[in-house]
Amino acid sequence: MSLGIDHIGIAVTHVEEALTLWRGTLGLELAQIEEVPSQKLVSYHLRAGESHIELLSPTDPASVIHRFLEKNGPGIHHIALRVEDLDGMRARLLQSGYQPIGEPSMGASGKRIQFFHPKTTGGVLLEICATA
Amino acid sequence: MSLGIDHIGIAVTHVEEALTLWRGTLGLELAQIEEVPSQKLVSYHLRAGESHIELLSPTDPASVIHRFLEKNGPGIHHIALRVEDLDGMRARLLQSGYQPIGEPSMGASGKRIQFFHPKTTGGVLLEICATA
Repeated sequence: MSLGIDHIGIAVTHVEEALTLWRGTLGLELAQIEEVPSQKLVSYHLRAGESHIELLSPTDPASVIHRFLEKNGPGIHHIALRVEDLDGMRARLLQSGYQPIGEPSMGASGKRIQFFHPKTTGGVLLEICATA
Repeated sequence: MSLGIDHIGIAVTHVEEALTLWRGTLGLELAQIEEVPSQKLVSYHLRAGESHIELLSPTDPASVIHRFLEKNGPGIHHIALRVEDLDGMRARLLQSGYQPIGEPSMGASGKRIQFFHPKTTGGVLLEICATA
């Protein structure tokens, strides 16, 4: 089933300011910086126990994160839960009426992911991601 | 320093619907139901690995969660990081210019907590909480 919180995605306008808070002051380790061309963003992974805080910084006005920032300003963007069986959990969510956003795709660190529409999940943009 | 994500607080309008998603479909264990009279809410703690998802359901129109729901609708309300030394981290955040909301108080499960204003933390309502 669900194994825990894989990460929390946070949309940032000024990545240096965000790093000052999360790494500098709160002391989280910057484990990885990853460019995700498919989503036109750079993701800064900060280790928080068994989870990560992912700072999402758009590289292009066409990025979904850029559009989120224009609409909402910076802040929490999504929650990702780690699941043992991505296809099984995806099917289970669909069967219960939750609406996927597109098909499973390759997310950060080469893990398969699937997003679900916040309109069907109580306002939470929910990602499920495979363990590996 | 920071030991990981203690919980993610989610403001809910219909707690039964939210439990259907997080417990029923995603399979998280409902570990605790806690009434927090000081915040006029009931908090449903669902275990997610070493963290919790906390569904926050207001019990009174004067609840801060009720006001959040009126303004934003249901969705992610805050992130709580577990820290070893609450007073030390609080002082460190204040010294760096982050603005606390009030004084440290007693949160869920009797742990000392401190919130910081999202205006100073990149749009994220940030809570730090003591380990015990």
